[in-house]
Amino acid sequence: MNNQLQIMRHSAAHLLAHAVMELFPKTILTIGPPTKAGFFYDFLPKENFKLLDLPKIEAKMHEIAARNLPITHEQMPKEQARKLFKDNPFKLELIEQIPGDTVGIATQGDFIDLCKGGHVDHTGKIKHFKLTGISGSYWRADRNGQALQRIAGTAFLNAKDLRTYEKRVEEARKYDHRKLGKQLDLFSFHDEGVGFPFFHPKGKSVIQLLKDYMRHLLNKYDYLEIQTPTMLSVDLWKQSGHYNFYKDNMYFSEIDEKQYAIKPMNCPGAIMIYKERPHSFRELPIRTSEFGNVHRYELSGALHGLFRARAFTQDDSHIFCTPEQIEDEVYHSLLLAQEVFSKFGFNTVRYALSTKPEKSMGSEQLWDKATQALANALKKANINYTVDEGEGAFYGPKIDMHIKDSMDRDWQCGTIQLDFFLPQNFNLEYVTSGDKREQPVMIHRAIYGSLERFFAILLEHFKGKLPFFIAPVQIKILTITDEQVPYAKSIFEKLKKNGYRVQLDASSDQISTKIKKGQIEQVPWMLIIGQKEVDNKTIALRYLSGKQEFGLSLEKLLEKANEA
Amino acid sequence: MNNQLQIMRHSAAHLLAHAVMELFPKTILTIGPPTKAGFFYDFLPKENFKLLDLPKIEAKMHEIAARNLPITHEQMPKEQARKLFKDNPFKLELIEQIPGDTVGIATQGDFIDLCKGGHVDHTGKIKHFKLTGISGSYWRADRNGQALQRIAGTAFLNAKDLRTYEKRVEEARKYDHRKLGKQLDLFSFHDEGVGFPFFHPKGKSVIQLLKDYMRHLLNKYDYLEIQTPTMLSVDLWKQSGHYNFYKDNMYFSEIDEKQYAIKPMNCPGAIMIYKERPHSFRELPIRTSEFGNVHRYELSGALHGLFRARAFTQDDSHIFCTPEQIEDEVYHSLLLAQEVFSKFGFNTVRYALSTKPEKSMGSEQLWDKATQALANALKKANINYTVDEGEGAFYGPKIDMHIKDSMDRDWQCGTIQLDFFLPQNFNLEYVTSGDKREQPVMIHRAIYGSLERFFAILLEHFKGKLPFFIAPVQIKILTITDEQVPYAKSIFEKLKKNGYRVQLDASSDQISTKIKKGQIEQVPWMLIIGQKEVDNKTIALRYLSGKQEFGLSLEKLLEKANEA
Repeated sequence: MNNQLQIMRHSAAHLLAHAVMELFPKTILTIGPPTKAGFFYDFLPKENFKLLDLPKIEAKMHEIAARNLPITHEQMPKEQARKLFKDNPFKLELIEQIPGDTVGIATQGDFIDLCKGGHVDHTGKIKHFKLTGISGSYWRADRNGQALQRIAGTAFLNAKDLRTYEKRVEEARKYDHRKLGKQLDLFSFHDEGVGFPFFHPKGKSVIQLLKDYMRHLLNKYDYLEIQTPTMLSVDLWKQSGHYNFYKDNMYFSEIDEKQYAIKPMNCPGAIMIYKERPHSFRELPIRTSEFGNVHRYELSGALHGLFRARAFTQDDSHIFCTPEQIEDEVYHSLLLAQEVFSKFGFNTVRYALSTKPEKSMGSEQLWDKATQALANALKKANINYTVDEGEGAFYGPKIDMHIKDSMDRDWQCGTIQLDFFLPQNFNLEYVTSGDKREQPVMIHRAIYGSLERFFAILLEHFKGKLPFFIAPVQIKILTITDEQVPYAKSIFEKLKKNGYRVQLDASSDQISTKIKKGQIEQVPWMLIIGQKEVDNKTIALRYLSGKQEFGLSLEKLLEKANEA
Repeated sequence: MNNQLQIMRHSAAHLLAHAVMELFPKTILTIGPPTKAGFFYDFLPKENFKLLDLPKIEAKMHEIAARNLPITHEQMPKEQARKLFKDNPFKLELIEQIPGDTVGIATQGDFIDLCKGGHVDHTGKIKHFKLTGISGSYWRADRNGQALQRIAGTAFLNAKDLRTYEKRVEEARKYDHRKLGKQLDLFSFHDEGVGFPFFHPKGKSVIQLLKDYMRHLLNKYDYLEIQTPTMLSVDLWKQSGHYNFYKDNMYFSEIDEKQYAIKPMNCPGAIMIYKERPHSFRELPIRTSEFGNVHRYELSGALHGLFRARAFTQDDSHIFCTPEQIEDEVYHSLLLAQEVFSKFGFNTVRYALSTKPEKSMGSEQLWDKATQALANALKKANINYTVDEGEGAFYGPKIDMHIKDSMDRDWQCGTIQLDFFLPQNFNLEYVTSGDKREQPVMIHRAIYGSLERFFAILLEHFKGKLPFFIAPVQIKILTITDEQVPYAKSIFEKLKKNGYRVQLDASSDQISTKIKKGQIEQVPWMLIIGQKEVDNKTIALRYLSGKQEFGLSLEKLLEKANEA
């Protein structure tokens, strides 16, 4: 996000808070930063805000903006600031944490807020904004802390950008995967398992196709698939460090008076298998893969269909290799990712290389070498990439892959992460050619990321019209009258035997009704079988687009299907 | 088990208790019934028994047997029995629960026990027995009750039967799947997840092959695969009745202050999907299938590798149909089961039809019709079966399928169970041709039962030599010297491309070492590539049995592999 846009959004957050204070003076303010998508402000309201309040607040924001209030920013001694905010415990807490003797104060009209600075000159400049929603949040994002209400919005520098944004939102709403999931009978959500998807036959079919396709590639790229338990003892999660950093997102249970966690990650399981026996340098790299079903706690307000669920399946992989093998392993992972993304028609992929953060483990030299290996692999694969300085994990540098969908949205799917931490934590070893014991490097990598989320991305990207190779029902055979049923059945059997996902609609419905049904179901190919087709032993093929081809032989159809 | 054998085993249990009391007089006796495999006695010892005590106890049993003590049985007034057992709270509890005013008392020498009766005349008749193990148990099998120690054994009517048993035990020990699992690098167990298997690449490969084969058949038999969540709210398990009957075997967790269970069964999930939309009679039968990973608590002492683990994958299916469709659905399920069992060479399958138990739900008429439908399906499939009167579940009659393995052991795998209960409990409906709402019947059925357990059965049945179609590595290519590596590689690539699971051993080991390694790994086919093979463009095929074929062309080999 460029700096100007950030300033605009920060100013809009202040405008929001200003409007809320005029409408609901008993509200207590907390913080309100700009974000990638817009801005928000977290409030402790006297009474909870409702969705219906948003238009009122938005109108008030426009009203205040029109007042053209100058926005000023000054430094104030902390002592004075504490008096100013004496009734606001959140601001008092913030003041304590700001280093130095003064704090920044922003003022517009009679609205005053604690603020680092960075605003437009006057409120009149904030024109192109929109409030987008209310959700629950917590002070300092701590689930055990004070519950707050977050009002989110977005703002742009000009009317055109706002219009583009609004159009996209509208389109995204139309092709929301949750809506398509219901319409196409793919999956459902139920109160009996909040955040846990139920996959209906057609949805499961797509998930399975994603898995099968990946398995096919994993075999080609010499991966070894493993399967590790869903429940593992808390002791293991303590050793891996996950308990410490991640326990708020984990589910727990108890067996024989011992604490267990439902796995949120697959790494410790893969490590247990690596450690089962000694390894020689000759065996490395060992590329293990696991379609790991992981469970992670998400706030119920943060759940969003398959995009953000409480359980999902990772196409996870852990590669154990020598430091010298990093470049080659990353290179092959990149090739694999490119193959997958291009298969689904994602031709714009953004690659970001994240380097050593301030807090990190491992020697400067190791980081340098490893980061260089990642860069070399990217170059070797002919990939343009950006560098996110200092954005690596504390345990190693990484490459993130973002795909751009048909609505121009950015989705981070794939990731390739080096890990110097877990191998050390678990004392992983291999025996070198010189018969010494050395520590292997571990590479975590996923391409889809989450199979369920990738499915949802595909659904929205293709606007429900999944392409032939991934469609749950690829071909639907429609008869015009009962007389064509035996011939239609013979075609059905042959297509099924050839491995196609095919349905036969031999009902007494009119052909127009049958076609309409097939279209609603978004079946890529419909085969229309009338008396002429029976007589000539041919097939009429109707694409979802409406385009038709007549007089195809079954052989020709199979040939087309094989290429589709 | 015949009555005579039961009497012998019951007598052996008394003999065991008698021996224990002579050796460890401070032991408190509880109960000691005969079982299918032998007998056991549960004790509350003063100090825990150790494995080393068993030979001592066994010797003492032989000693008492040789005393030829007459065994008598009489009825005793409860008042008197209470005095006799005044220091044994377990026996006192049992006395209270026996109806009537008297209880049975068995006497042999100075050993006296509470007992319904059924013994041999004198201890001298108990000759052919063996103690088999010590494990933990609980009074009344209640985890929260008093912890006890169980000594188990077996006894036979003659020496030959005992020898046969001992030989089988020895063979079973030799081919114990836990041992083979380690030897063949298939799976492992770890303290970090007691009872939860970790599948190594080769083991996962077999599990996946079992799944793929079943999926292929499910497609052929018109099943619809679904996928339901691992965690579901306790409310749902209460509605399904599982909580009530099964909660001691379930694991629990908490999400947003709501109780969840890790699913021990897949039925409620399948029902949620059925209920997602109304169904017409035209849609029935709906055959849903799910490879459901279920978690069930087992006492740590009861765990037994993959035979009895705390998590496993069911090849589960729930068929929703009209009462009229039961016969046909069961018939097709039987055909499917026969196809699976014969694929793996299990040609002796025992089918048992279990009928209405005393406590049951649903009308007499419904039970009659349904039981008749099961019997008809069995007849139609030309299957001989036994009837287990009154052994059905309370919710419907069932057919259990037992396979016999190469060591003559009986394994219950498949089951087909009708269910009148869950459809009522969840108000399942379909719309009849007359536009009325009726309740469908639900059929639960599994063929493998548990994929992991079936894998273990296969391993022991085949004594580690898995047949070609299910072997994790089907073919291993061995070069004699480095000169053959390019040719060997080209064969490797072609076999891999044709979908075979193939490895290349191009190491500098001697060919005899390579063959030995392949044999230890139980690889069905080894291709030996020497200079002659390179020159003639042929392949030498060595089977695991040692049989060899020379001069095969690659085409011929592929043909053979396709038929294997």
